[in-house]
Amino acid sequence: MVKKAVPDSTRRSTRSRRAIYDAALALVGEVGYPRTTIEGIAARAGVGKQTIYRWWSSKAEVLLEAFTDLSAQAAEAAARPGPEEGGQEGGQGENGIPDTGDLAADLKLVLRATVDELLDPKFDIPARALAAEGVVDEQVGAEFVTKLLEPQLQLYVRRLRSAQEHGDVRPDVDPRIALELFVSPLAQRWLQRTGPITHAYTDTLVDYALNGLAPRRPS
Amino acid sequence: MVKKAVPDSTRRSTRSRRAIYDAALALVGEVGYPRTTIEGIAARAGVGKQTIYRWWSSKAEVLLEAFTDLSAQAAEAAARPGPEEGGQEGGQGENGIPDTGDLAADLKLVLRATVDELLDPKFDIPARALAAEGVVDEQVGAEFVTKLLEPQLQLYVRRLRSAQEHGDVRPDVDPRIALELFVSPLAQRWLQRTGPITHAYTDTLVDYALNGLAPRRPS
Repeated sequence: MVKKAVPDSTRRSTRSRRAIYDAALALVGEVGYPRTTIEGIAARAGVGKQTIYRWWSSKAEVLLEAFTDLSAQAAEAAARPGPEEGGQEGGQGENGIPDTGDLAADLKLVLRATVDELLDPKFDIPARALAAEGVVDEQVGAEFVTKLLEPQLQLYVRRLRSAQEHGDVRPDVDPRIALELFVSPLAQRWLQRTGPITHAYTDTLVDYALNGLAPRRPS
Repeated sequence: MVKKAVPDSTRRSTRSRRAIYDAALALVGEVGYPRTTIEGIAARAGVGKQTIYRWWSSKAEVLLEAFTDLSAQAAEAAARPGPEEGGQEGGQGENGIPDTGDLAADLKLVLRATVDELLDPKFDIPARALAAEGVVDEQVGAEFVTKLLEPQLQLYVRRLRSAQEHGDVRPDVDPRIALELFVSPLAQRWLQRTGPITHAYTDTLVDYALNGLAPRRPS
């Protein structure tokens, strides 16, 4: 078998980018957002400052891409078929949230994966540093919400719309607000450490949100 | 009418405490938690450093009390009868959340007041600085969650328990998790600015949480 040739410069670029992502995430986790600099990232990644400026114009841009890459890696790892499964192309759909027809099961699956990601120090430490800065710096907050958080929330909007089409969610419900019933509790527990984060917890959130807290009249 | 004599030292203490609270909240909002110091608070309040150390042992303690005082003031203002009402001792109960027997109305009332507080810069700016620090500093976060946030959440736990006794919330529901369905979305929108904060929004959260997102079968 003939190995396909990858040009040296491409390989070098990929390696540099990965080193820069890693350096940016590590640094922001250690010193916080305000004290993270392009110079610091370059030094830690072992590249010249100009290499970073060739690809990005600010530290916010570098971090944004580093987190996008980190999430993509996590999603890839989660989608990788385990030894007992044959992959999940069937139900996955292109919206990133499975659509098997069982809304509760699909939401639970995705939220469990999010729990795992939030508990992983590789994600937790840098994401926390960035989130903290977004709380006090409106511009940083807006940048990351618009480019990282909201696109993820829109995946839930699409899944809930599909559920409405199938009669599993009431037609009068606003999906953009509805998703907050199970996403925001997890976010608050993570951000403010107001309680433990477990799979059982997010399963419960989904059940409460779909069925409501008030008693259902006998049908 | 004879005015009751207030000892001069008490009056002076009250005035100093209030000045220290105000200075602490203003300072943390301006420079952030890490750069807020006892010295800075003292200078701004126009008191000696020793005056602060006589009453508190750390800046965290000063801020904790300043926020407690601020919340108490807001609660007092909210409870003050307007021109058209005769006060609300009747339904208020000692748990701080009204218990009129109408769970949805009671929750909506309290959440609307919370919206007003979060939108008030007097609260928003210092609270944001403190919350941001809690996201990255586990000890600071734990201190403020334990002493400020969790006691407020426990008021919802009590109200939901009362609702369970009256059959308005299912008996199998865990009130500590249930309250997060309407409290956490508001918290996340405030902290991360993921969407507008209005009375209509929190009303919707309460309706969704109590009734659920899935269709109710005809009774």
